Amino acid sequence: MQKVETTRHIVDPFHTDYKKQLSWETLGVDLLNAAENHAAIRGFGMKDVNDVNYTWVLARLVIELDVTPKVYQDYLIDTWVENVFSMFTNRDYAIHDGKGCVYGYARSVWSTINFETRKPVDLLEFHGPEFADYCAPELPCPIAPYTRIKPLAGAEIVKMHKVNYSDIDFNGHVNSMKYLLHLRDIFPLEQYRKQRLRRVELQYQKESYYGQFLQFFMKNETENVYDVEICRTDIQTDDKGEVCVRARLIFE
Amino acid sequence: MQKVETTRHIVDPFHTDYKKQLSWETLGVDLLNAAENHAAIRGFGMKDVNDVNYTWVLARLVIELDVTPKVYQDYLIDTWVENVFSMFTNRDYAIHDGKGCVYGYARSVWSTINFETRKPVDLLEFHGPEFADYCAPELPCPIAPYTRIKPLAGAEIVKMHKVNYSDIDFNGHVNSMKYLLHLRDIFPLEQYRKQRLRRVELQYQKESYYGQFLQFFMKNETENVYDVEICRTDIQTDDKGEVCVRARLIFE
Repeated sequence: MQKVETTRHIVDPFHTDYKKQLSWETLGVDLLNAAENHAAIRGFGMKDVNDVNYTWVLARLVIELDVTPKVYQDYLIDTWVENVFSMFTNRDYAIHDGKGCVYGYARSVWSTINFETRKPVDLLEFHGPEFADYCAPELPCPIAPYTRIKPLAGAEIVKMHKVNYSDIDFNGHVNSMKYLLHLRDIFPLEQYRKQRLRRVELQYQKESYYGQFLQFFMKNETENVYDVEICRTDIQTDDKGEVCVRARLIFE
Repeated sequence: MQKVETTRHIVDPFHTDYKKQLSWETLGVDLLNAAENHAAIRGFGMKDVNDVNYTWVLARLVIELDVTPKVYQDYLIDTWVENVFSMFTNRDYAIHDGKGCVYGYARSVWSTINFETRKPVDLLEFHGPEFADYCAPELPCPIAPYTRIKPLAGAEIVKMHKVNYSDIDFNGHVNSMKYLLHLRDIFPLEQYRKQRLRRVELQYQKESYYGQFLQFFMKNETENVYDVEICRTDIQTDDKGEVCVRARLIFE
Protein backbone atom coordinates (compact mmCIF):
# COMPACT_ATOMS: atom_id res chain seq x y z
CA MET A 1 0.00 0.00 0.00
CA GLN A 2 1.24 3.50 -0.75
CA LYS A 3 2.53 5.35 2.29
CA VAL A 4 1.50 8.92 1.47
CA GLU A 5 -1.99 10.40 1.15
CA THR A 6 -2.60 13.78 -0.41
CA THR A 7 -5.53 16.10 0.25
CA ARG A 8 -6.22 19.03 -2.06
CA HIS A 9 -7.40 22.45 -0.88
CA ILE A 10 -7.96 25.94 -2.20
CA VAL A 11 -7.45 29.07 -0.11
CA ASP A 12 -11.07 30.23 0.06
CA PRO A 13 -11.47 33.96 0.73
CA PHE A 14 -13.29 33.28 4.00
CA HIS A 15 -10.43 31.11 5.29
CA THR A 16 -7.91 33.93 5.04
CA ASP A 17 -6.83 36.63 7.45
CA TYR A 18 -7.01 40.36 6.81
CA LYS A 19 -3.95 40.10 4.51
CA LYS A 20 -5.73 37.52 2.30
CA GLN A 21 -3.33 34.81 3.44
CA LEU A 22 -4.41 31.37 4.57
CA SER A 23 -5.07 31.46 8.31
CA TRP A 24 -2.79 29.19 10.35
CA GLU A 25 -5.75 27.77 12.27
CA THR A 26 -7.43 26.72 9.03
CA LEU A 27 -4.19 25.09 7.90
CA GLY A 28 -3.83 23.45 11.32
CA VAL A 29 -7.32 21.93 11.14
CA ASP A 30 -6.57 20.79 7.57
CA LEU A 31 -3.43 19.03 8.86
CA LEU A 32 -5.49 17.23 11.50
CA ASN A 33 -8.09 16.18 8.95
CA ALA A 34 -5.39 15.11 6.46
CA ALA A 35 -3.97 12.88 9.22
CA GLU A 36 -7.43 11.49 9.87
CA ASN A 37 -7.98 10.80 6.16
CA HIS A 38 -4.63 8.95 5.91
CA ALA A 39 -5.32 6.92 9.06
CA ALA A 40 -8.96 6.11 8.22
CA ILE A 41 -7.98 4.66 4.82
CA ARG A 42 -5.58 2.32 6.65
CA GLY A 43 -8.08 1.27 9.31
CA PHE A 44 -6.70 3.20 12.30
CA GLY A 45 -8.67 6.44 12.00
CA MET A 46 -10.61 8.30 14.64
CA LYS A 47 -13.78 6.29 14.03
CA ASP A 48 -11.92 2.98 14.32
CA VAL A 49 -10.47 3.90 17.71
CA ASN A 50 -13.53 5.81 18.99
CA ASP A 51 -15.69 2.73 18.35
CA VAL A 52 -13.70 0.82 20.97
CA ASN A 53 -13.57 3.79 23.38
CA TYR A 54 -10.12 5.12 22.50
CA THR A 55 -9.11 8.31 20.75
CA TRP A 56 -6.14 9.93 19.04
CA VAL A 57 -4.60 12.99 20.70
CA LEU A 58 -1.91 15.31 19.46
CA ALA A 59 1.21 15.54 21.65
CA ARG A 60 3.37 17.87 19.54
CA LEU A 61 3.06 19.94 16.42
CA VAL A 62 5.54 22.05 14.47
CA ILE A 63 4.47 23.99 11.39
CA GLU A 64 6.99 25.96 9.37
CA LEU A 65 6.01 27.95 6.29
CA ASP A 66 8.54 29.64 4.02
CA VAL A 67 5.64 31.03 2.04
CA THR A 68 2.09 31.52 3.31
CA PRO A 69 -0.45 30.49 0.64
CA LYS A 70 -2.56 33.38 -0.65
CA VAL A 71 -6.25 33.60 -1.47
CA TYR A 72 -7.36 31.45 -4.45
CA GLN A 73 -4.08 29.49 -4.50
CA ASP A 74 -4.13 25.70 -4.37
CA TYR A 75 -2.44 23.93 -1.51
CA LEU A 76 -1.93 20.21 -1.23
CA ILE A 77 -1.07 18.38 1.95
CA ASP A 78 0.99 15.17 1.71
CA THR A 79 1.09 13.21 4.93
CA TRP A 80 2.78 10.01 6.06
CA VAL A 81 3.83 8.22 9.24
CA GLU A 82 7.55 8.70 9.86
CA ASN A 83 7.97 6.11 12.60
CA VAL A 84 6.43 4.60 15.71
CA PHE A 85 7.80 4.25 19.24
CA SER A 86 5.85 2.40 21.90
CA MET A 87 3.42 5.17 22.98
CA PHE A 88 4.07 7.75 20.24
CA THR A 89 4.02 7.98 16.48
CA ASN A 90 5.59 10.72 14.37
CA ARG A 91 3.57 11.99 11.43
CA ASP A 92 5.04 14.39 8.88
CA TYR A 93 3.48 16.70 6.31
CA ALA A 94 4.57 18.55 3.18
CA ILE A 95 2.47 21.54 2.12
CA HIS A 96 2.89 22.52 -1.54
CA ASP A 97 1.06 23.84 -4.58
CA GLY A 98 1.17 20.61 -6.60
CA LYS A 99 3.35 22.27 -9.22
CA GLY A 100 6.74 22.19 -7.52
CA CYS A 101 6.45 25.11 -5.11
CA VAL A 102 6.73 23.98 -1.49
CA TYR A 103 5.08 26.29 1.05
CA GLY A 104 6.42 24.43 4.06
CA TYR A 105 6.41 21.34 6.23
CA ALA A 106 4.96 20.14 9.50
CA ARG A 107 5.85 17.51 12.08
CA SER A 108 3.51 16.00 14.64
CA VAL A 109 3.50 13.42 17.40
CA TRP A 110 0.33 11.51 18.28
CA SER A 111 -0.82 9.05 20.95
CA THR A 112 -3.81 6.78 21.21
CA ILE A 113 -5.40 7.15 24.66
CA ASN A 114 -8.24 5.44 26.47
CA PHE A 115 -11.28 7.74 26.44
CA GLU A 116 -11.98 7.27 30.16
CA THR A 117 -8.56 6.83 31.79
CA ARG A 118 -6.82 9.20 29.29
CA LYS A 119 -3.79 6.84 29.45
CA PRO A 120 -1.79 6.14 26.28
CA VAL A 121 -1.52 2.64 24.84
CA ASP A 122 1.39 0.84 23.18
CA LEU A 123 0.64 1.58 19.55
CA LEU A 124 1.97 -1.61 17.93
CA GLU A 125 0.17 -3.72 20.52
CA PHE A 126 -3.09 -1.79 20.10
CA HIS A 127 -3.15 -1.22 16.33
CA GLY A 128 -1.26 -4.44 15.44
CA PRO A 129 2.28 -4.87 14.09
CA GLU A 130 1.10 -3.96 10.55
CA PHE A 131 0.97 -0.35 11.79
CA ALA A 132 4.79 -0.34 11.34
CA ASP A 133 4.36 -1.24 7.64
CA TYR A 134 2.99 2.24 6.96
CA CYS A 135 6.12 3.99 8.24
CA ALA A 136 8.18 5.90 5.68
CA PRO A 137 11.23 7.27 7.54
CA GLU A 138 12.98 7.72 4.19
CA LEU A 139 10.69 10.59 3.12
CA PRO A 140 12.18 14.05 3.69
CA CYS A 141 10.78 16.56 6.16
CA PRO A 142 13.54 19.18 6.10
CA ILE A 143 12.51 21.38 9.02
CA ALA A 144 14.16 21.46 12.43
CA PRO A 145 12.70 19.01 14.92
CA TYR A 146 10.95 20.13 18.10
CA THR A 147 12.80 22.37 20.46
CA ARG A 148 12.64 21.22 24.03
CA ILE A 149 10.99 24.40 25.27
CA LYS A 150 12.14 25.00 28.84
CA PRO A 151 9.84 26.09 31.66
CA LEU A 152 9.59 29.88 31.70
CA ALA A 153 10.78 31.64 34.84
CA GLY A 154 9.59 35.13 35.61
CA ALA A 155 7.41 35.38 32.49
CA GLU A 156 4.58 37.87 32.48
CA ILE A 157 0.94 36.96 32.15
CA VAL A 158 -0.21 38.59 28.91
CA LYS A 159 -3.71 37.17 28.51
CA MET A 160 -6.43 35.18 30.24
CA HIS A 161 -9.16 33.23 28.45
CA LYS A 162 -12.15 31.41 29.89
CA VAL A 163 -12.74 28.18 27.97
CA ASN A 164 -15.98 28.44 25.97
CA TYR A 165 -18.30 25.99 24.25
CA SER A 166 -16.59 26.57 20.88
CA ASP A 167 -13.13 25.70 22.28
CA ILE A 168 -14.20 22.11 23.04
CA ASP A 169 -13.96 19.36 20.45
CA PHE A 170 -15.31 15.81 20.25
CA ASN A 171 -12.52 14.64 22.58
CA GLY A 172 -14.17 16.71 25.33
CA HIS A 173 -11.17 19.01 25.75
CA VAL A 174 -9.87 22.28 24.30
CA ASN A 175 -9.03 21.59 20.66
CA SER A 176 -5.34 21.75 19.76
CA MET A 177 -5.92 24.40 17.08
CA LYS A 178 -7.91 26.61 19.45
CA TYR A 179 -4.72 27.02 21.50
CA LEU A 180 -3.03 28.18 18.28
CA LEU A 181 -5.84 30.65 17.65
CA HIS A 182 -5.61 32.11 21.15
CA LEU A 183 -1.79 32.23 20.91
CA ARG A 184 -1.97 34.16 17.65
CA ASP A 185 -4.42 36.62 19.19
CA ILE A 186 -1.84 37.62 21.81
CA PHE A 187 -0.10 39.68 19.12
CA PRO A 188 -1.52 42.97 17.84
CA LEU A 189 -2.64 43.39 14.24
CA GLU A 190 0.29 45.80 13.83
CA GLN A 191 2.76 42.96 14.32
CA TYR A 192 1.19 40.98 11.47
CA ARG A 193 1.32 44.07 9.28
CA LYS A 194 5.11 44.31 9.72
CA GLN A 195 6.07 40.66 10.10
CA ARG A 196 5.17 37.18 8.96
CA LEU A 197 4.75 34.20 11.27
CA ARG A 198 7.22 31.60 10.01
CA ARG A 199 7.25 28.78 12.56
CA VAL A 200 5.03 27.55 15.37
CA GLU A 201 5.88 24.81 17.87
CA LEU A 202 3.31 23.37 20.24
CA GLN A 203 3.93 20.86 23.03
CA TYR A 204 0.67 19.59 24.45
CA GLN A 205 1.24 18.47 28.04
CA LYS A 206 -2.11 18.40 29.79
CA GLU A 207 -5.69 18.74 28.63
CA SER A 208 -7.91 21.66 29.63
CA TYR A 209 -11.68 21.64 29.92
CA TYR A 210 -14.86 23.68 29.63
CA GLY A 211 -15.11 26.45 32.22
CA GLN A 212 -11.42 26.46 33.12
CA PHE A 213 -9.29 29.57 32.75
CA LEU A 214 -6.27 29.60 30.47
CA GLN A 215 -3.39 31.87 31.48
CA PHE A 216 -0.82 32.89 28.85
CA PHE A 217 2.68 33.61 30.17
CA MET A 218 5.12 34.96 27.59
CA LYS A 219 8.85 35.66 27.23
CA ASN A 220 10.66 37.25 24.30
CA GLU A 221 14.39 36.90 25.02
CA THR A 222 15.57 36.43 21.43
CA GLU A 223 14.46 38.77 18.67
CA ASN A 224 11.32 37.50 16.91
CA VAL A 225 11.12 34.38 19.13
CA TYR A 226 8.22 34.24 21.58
CA ASP A 227 7.93 31.45 24.14
CA VAL A 228 4.55 30.98 25.78
CA GLU A 229 3.27 28.77 28.57
CA ILE A 230 -0.46 28.21 28.65
CA CYS A 231 -1.58 27.22 32.15
CA ARG A 232 -4.99 26.10 33.36
CA THR A 233 -6.75 27.05 36.59
CA ASP A 234 -10.23 26.36 37.90
CA ILE A 235 -10.68 29.92 39.15
CA GLN A 236 -9.80 33.31 37.70
CA THR A 237 -6.43 34.13 39.25
CA ASP A 238 -2.97 35.39 38.29
CA ASP A 239 -1.38 32.65 40.40
CA LYS A 240 0.20 30.29 37.94
CA GLY A 241 -1.75 27.12 37.28
CA GLU A 242 -0.68 23.79 35.75
CA VAL A 243 1.07 24.00 32.37
CA CYS A 244 -1.12 22.62 29.53
CA VAL A 245 0.84 23.77 26.51
CA ARG A 246 4.33 25.11 25.85
CA ALA A 247 4.65 27.02 22.61
CA ARG A 248 7.17 28.91 20.54
CA LEU A 249 6.23 31.34 17.77
CA ILE A 250 8.89 32.68 15.41
CA PHE A 251 8.22 35.73 13.26
CA GLU A 252 10.38 37.11 10.46
CA MET B 1 -26.40 29.02 -17.90
CA GLN B 2 -27.56 26.90 -15.00
CA LYS B 3 -28.67 28.92 -12.01
CA VAL B 4 -27.59 26.67 -9.14
CA GLU B 5 -24.09 25.67 -8.07
CA THR B 6 -23.44 22.83 -5.67
CA THR B 7 -20.43 22.39 -3.41
CA ARG B 8 -19.77 19.05 -1.73
CA HIS B 9 -18.46 18.68 1.83
CA ILE B 10 -17.85 16.01 4.43
CA VAL B 11 -18.20 16.62 8.16
CA ASP B 12 -14.56 16.19 9.14
CA PRO B 13 -14.03 15.23 12.80
CA PHE B 14 -12.11 18.44 13.47
CA HIS B 15 -14.97 20.59 12.15
CA THR B 16 -17.42 19.25 14.71
CA ASP B 17 -18.34 20.35 18.20
CA TYR B 18 -18.10 18.22 21.32
CA LYS B 19 -21.24 16.31 20.26
CA LYS B 20 -19.59 15.33 16.94
CA GLN B 21 -22.03 17.53 15.04
CA LEU B 22 -21.00 19.99 12.32
CA SER B 23 -20.19 23.32 13.94
CA TRP B 24 -22.44 26.18 12.82
CA GLU B 25 -19.46 28.44 12.20
CA THR B 26 -17.92 25.89 9.83
CA LEU B 27 -21.26 25.63 8.00
CA GLY B 28 -21.51 29.43 7.95
CA VAL B 29 -18.07 29.81 6.36
CA ASP B 30 -18.99 27.06 3.87
CA LEU B 31 -22.12 29.04 2.93
CA LEU B 32 -20.01 32.15 2.31
CA ASN B 33 -17.54 30.20 0.19
CA ALA B 34 -20.36 28.46 -1.72
CA ALA B 35 -21.73 31.93 -2.55
CA GLU B 36 -18.28 33.02 -3.68
CA ASN B 37 -17.89 29.92 -5.87
CA HIS B 38 -21.29 30.55 -7.51
CA ALA B 39 -20.53 34.23 -8.08
CA ALA B 40 -16.94 33.72 -9.31
CA ILE B 41 -18.09 31.26 -12.00
CA ARG B 42 -20.48 33.96 -13.26
CA GLY B 43 -17.91 36.77 -13.21
CA PHE B 44 -19.12 38.69 -10.15
CA GLY B 45 -17.09 37.01 -7.42
CA MET B 46 -14.99 38.57 -4.70
CA LYS B 47 -11.91 38.78 -6.90
CA ASP B 48 -13.82 40.49 -9.72
CA VAL B 49 -15.11 43.22 -7.41
CA ASN B 50 -11.95 43.49 -5.25
CA ASP B 51 -9.91 44.14 -8.40
CA VAL B 52 -11.82 47.39 -8.95
CA ASN B 53 -11.79 48.33 -5.24
CA TYR B 54 -15.24 47.07 -4.29
CA THR B 55 -16.25 44.16 -2.07
CA TRP B 56 -19.25 42.03 -1.21
CA VAL B 57 -20.65 42.29 2.32
CA LEU B 58 -23.32 40.26 4.03
CA ALA B 59 -26.35 42.23 5.27
CA ARG B 60 -28.53 39.41 6.57
CA LEU B 61 -28.29 35.70 7.15
CA VAL B 62 -30.80 33.10 8.34
CA ILE B 63 -29.79 29.47 8.79
CA GLU B 64 -32.35 26.88 9.84
CA LEU B 65 -31.45 23.23 10.32
CA ASP B 66 -34.01 20.52 11.02
CA VAL B 67 -31.14 18.06 11.34
CA THR B 68 -27.54 18.93 12.19
CA PRO B 69 -25.12 16.88 10.04
CA LYS B 70 -23.00 14.45 12.04
CA VAL B 71 -19.34 13.52 11.77
CA TYR B 72 -18.39 11.66 8.52
CA GLN B 73 -21.74 12.54 6.86
CA ASP B 74 -21.76 14.23 3.46
CA TYR B 75 -23.40 17.60 3.10
CA LEU B 76 -23.99 19.42 -0.14
CA ILE B 77 -24.76 23.10 -0.45
CA ASP B 78 -26.91 24.26 -3.37
CA THR B 79 -26.94 28.01 -3.81
CA TRP B 80 -28.65 30.42 -6.19
CA VAL B 81 -29.62 34.08 -6.45
CA GLU B 82 -33.31 34.52 -5.61
CA ASN B 83 -33.68 38.11 -6.82
CA VAL B 84 -32.06 41.52 -6.94
CA PHE B 85 -33.31 44.91 -5.73
CA SER B 86 -31.29 48.05 -6.38
CA MET B 87 -28.76 47.81 -3.51
CA PHE B 88 -29.47 44.27 -2.29
CA THR B 89 -29.54 40.76 -3.64
CA ASN B 90 -31.13 37.74 -1.98
CA ARG B 91 -29.19 34.49 -2.14
CA ASP B 92 -30.70 31.20 -0.94
CA TYR B 93 -29.19 27.87 0.00
CA ALA B 94 -30.35 24.28 0.45
CA ILE B 95 -28.21 22.01 2.64
CA HIS B 96 -28.75 18.30 2.02
CA ASP B 97 -27.01 14.93 1.89
CA GLY B 98 -27.27 14.45 -1.87
CA LYS B 99 -29.52 11.42 -1.40
CA GLY B 100 -32.84 13.08 -0.62
CA CYS B 101 -32.37 14.05 3.03
CA VAL B 102 -32.55 17.83 3.53
CA TYR B 103 -30.73 19.13 6.61
CA GLY B 104 -32.03 22.67 6.22
CA TYR B 105 -31.98 25.94 4.31
CA ALA B 106 -30.45 29.36 4.53
CA ARG B 107 -31.31 32.83 3.26
CA SER B 108 -28.92 35.72 2.85
CA VAL B 109 -28.86 39.33 1.66
CA TRP B 110 -25.69 40.83 0.16
CA SER B 111 -24.51 44.26 -1.01
CA THR B 112 -21.55 45.36 -3.07
CA ILE B 113 -19.83 48.29 -1.36
CA ASN B 114 -16.95 50.58 -2.27
CA PHE B 115 -13.88 49.51 -0.31
CA GLU B 116 -13.05 53.08 0.79
CA THR B 117 -16.41 54.82 1.20
CA ARG B 118 -18.18 51.60 2.40
CA LYS B 119 -21.25 52.82 0.43
CA PRO B 120 -23.40 50.27 -1.47
CA VAL B 121 -23.81 50.43 -5.24
CA ASP B 122 -26.82 49.77 -7.46
CA LEU B 123 -26.20 46.13 -8.33
CA LEU B 124 -27.69 46.03 -11.84
CA GLU B 125 -25.81 49.20 -12.75
CA PHE B 126 -22.53 47.94 -11.28
CA HIS B 127 -22.61 44.28 -12.35
CA GLY B 128 -24.60 44.87 -15.55
CA PRO B 129 -28.21 43.91 -16.38
CA GLU B 130 -27.15 40.29 -17.07
CA PHE B 131 -26.90 39.89 -13.28
CA ALA B 132 -30.71 39.58 -13.32
CA ASP B 133 -30.46 36.59 -15.69
CA TYR B 134 -29.02 34.49 -12.87
CA CYS B 135 -32.05 34.98 -10.62
CA ALA B 136 -34.15 31.92 -9.87
CA PRO B 137 -37.10 33.12 -7.72
CA GLU B 138 -38.96 29.91 -8.64
CA LEU B 139 -36.65 27.69 -6.58
CA PRO B 140 -38.04 26.80 -3.14
CA CYS B 141 -36.48 27.97 0.12
CA PRO B 142 -39.18 26.89 2.57
CA ILE B 143 -37.99 28.60 5.75
CA ALA B 144 -39.51 31.71 7.32
CA PRO B 145 -38.02 34.96 6.05
CA TYR B 146 -36.12 37.34 8.32
CA THR B 147 -37.81 38.58 11.41
CA ARG B 148 -37.54 42.32 11.84
CA ILE B 149 -35.76 42.06 15.18
CA LYS B 150 -36.77 45.08 17.26
CA PRO B 151 -34.32 47.11 19.34
CA LEU B 152 -34.01 45.56 22.78
CA ALA B 153 -35.03 47.71 25.73
CA GLY B 154 -33.72 46.94 29.18
CA ALA B 155 -31.65 43.95 28.03
CA GLU B 156 -28.77 42.84 30.19
CA ILE B 157 -25.17 42.84 29.09
CA VAL B 158 -24.10 39.19 29.16
CA LYS B 159 -20.66 39.32 27.57
CA MET B 160 -17.93 41.66 26.37
CA HIS B 161 -15.32 40.78 23.76
CA LYS B 162 -12.31 42.77 22.59
CA VAL B 163 -11.88 42.36 18.84
CA ASN B 164 -8.71 40.34 18.11
CA TYR B 165 -6.52 39.75 15.08
CA SER B 166 -8.33 36.49 14.27
CA ASP B 167 -11.75 38.21 14.19
CA ILE B 168 -10.74 40.37 11.23
CA ASP B 169 -11.17 39.18 7.65
CA PHE B 170 -9.91 40.44 4.28
CA ASN B 171 -12.62 43.11 4.31
CA GLY B 172 -10.83 44.71 7.28
CA HIS B 173 -13.76 44.20 9.64
CA VAL B 174 -15.03 41.56 12.05
CA ASN B 175 -16.01 38.56 9.95
CA SER B 176 -19.73 37.77 9.87
CA MET B 177 -19.18 34.22 11.12
CA LYS B 178 -17.06 35.39 14.05
CA TYR B 179 -20.16 37.17 15.40
CA LEU B 180 -21.93 33.81 15.17
CA LEU B 181 -19.07 32.12 17.05
CA HIS B 182 -19.14 34.70 19.84
CA LEU B 183 -22.96 34.52 19.99
CA ARG B 184 -22.87 30.76 20.37
CA ASP B 185 -20.31 31.07 23.15
CA ILE B 186 -22.76 33.10 25.26
CA PHE B 187 -24.53 29.84 26.08
CA PRO B 188 -23.10 27.27 28.48
CA LEU B 189 -22.11 23.80 27.33
CA GLU B 190 -24.98 22.50 29.46
CA GLN B 191 -27.52 24.19 27.18
CA TYR B 192 -26.10 22.37 24.13
CA ARG B 193 -26.23 19.11 26.04
CA LYS B 194 -29.99 19.49 26.59
CA GLN B 195 -31.02 21.39 23.49
CA ARG B 196 -30.27 21.79 19.82
CA LEU B 197 -29.83 25.11 18.04
CA ARG B 198 -32.41 25.12 15.26
CA ARG B 199 -32.41 28.61 13.75
CA VAL B 200 -30.12 31.63 13.71
CA GLU B 201 -30.94 35.06 12.30
CA LEU B 202 -28.32 37.74 11.88
CA GLN B 203 -28.88 41.34 10.77
CA TYR B 204 -25.59 43.08 10.08
CA GLN B 205 -26.06 46.81 10.56
CA LYS B 206 -22.64 48.35 11.11
CA GLU B 207 -19.11 47.07 10.80
CA SER B 208 -16.78 46.70 13.79
CA TYR B 209 -13.01 46.87 13.74
CA TYR B 210 -9.78 45.69 15.35
CA GLY B 211 -9.37 46.90 18.93
CA GLN B 212 -13.04 47.79 19.46
CA PHE B 213 -15.10 46.20 22.22
CA LEU B 214 -18.21 44.19 21.42
CA GLN B 215 -20.98 44.23 24.01
CA PHE B 216 -23.61 41.48 23.93
CA PHE B 217 -27.05 42.48 25.29
CA MET B 218 -29.54 39.62 25.53
CA LYS B 219 -33.28 39.10 26.16
CA ASN B 220 -35.15 35.81 26.46
CA GLU B 221 -38.86 36.70 26.58
CA THR B 222 -40.19 33.67 24.71
CA GLU B 223 -39.13 30.17 25.66
CA ASN B 224 -36.09 29.02 23.64
CA VAL B 225 -35.89 32.34 21.72
CA TYR B 226 -32.90 34.55 22.49
CA ASP B 227 -32.59 38.05 21.01
CA VAL B 228 -29.16 39.63 21.14
CA GLU B 229 -27.82 43.06 20.26
CA ILE B 230 -24.11 43.28 19.61
CA CYS B 231 -22.88 46.83 20.13
CA ARG B 232 -19.46 48.32 19.47
CA THR B 233 -17.55 50.81 21.63
CA ASP B 234 -14.04 52.19 21.41
CA ILE B 235 -13.45 51.83 25.14
CA GLN B 236 -14.31 49.13 27.65
CA THR B 237 -17.60 50.28 29.18
CA ASP B 238 -21.06 48.97 30.06
CA ASP B 239 -22.64 52.08 28.51
CA LYS B 240 -24.37 50.85 25.41
CA GLY B 241 -22.52 51.53 22.15
CA GLU B 242 -23.74 51.54 18.55
CA VAL B 243 -25.60 48.45 17.41
CA CYS B 244 -23.55 46.38 14.89
CA VAL B 245 -25.60 43.21 14.73
CA ARG B 246 -29.09 42.15 15.84
CA ALA B 247 -29.47 38.41 16.23
CA ARG B 248 -32.02 35.79 17.18
CA LEU B 249 -31.12 32.25 18.20
CA ILE B 250 -33.85 29.62 18.53
CA PHE B 251 -33.19 26.38 20.39
CA GLU B 252 -35.41 23.31 20.56
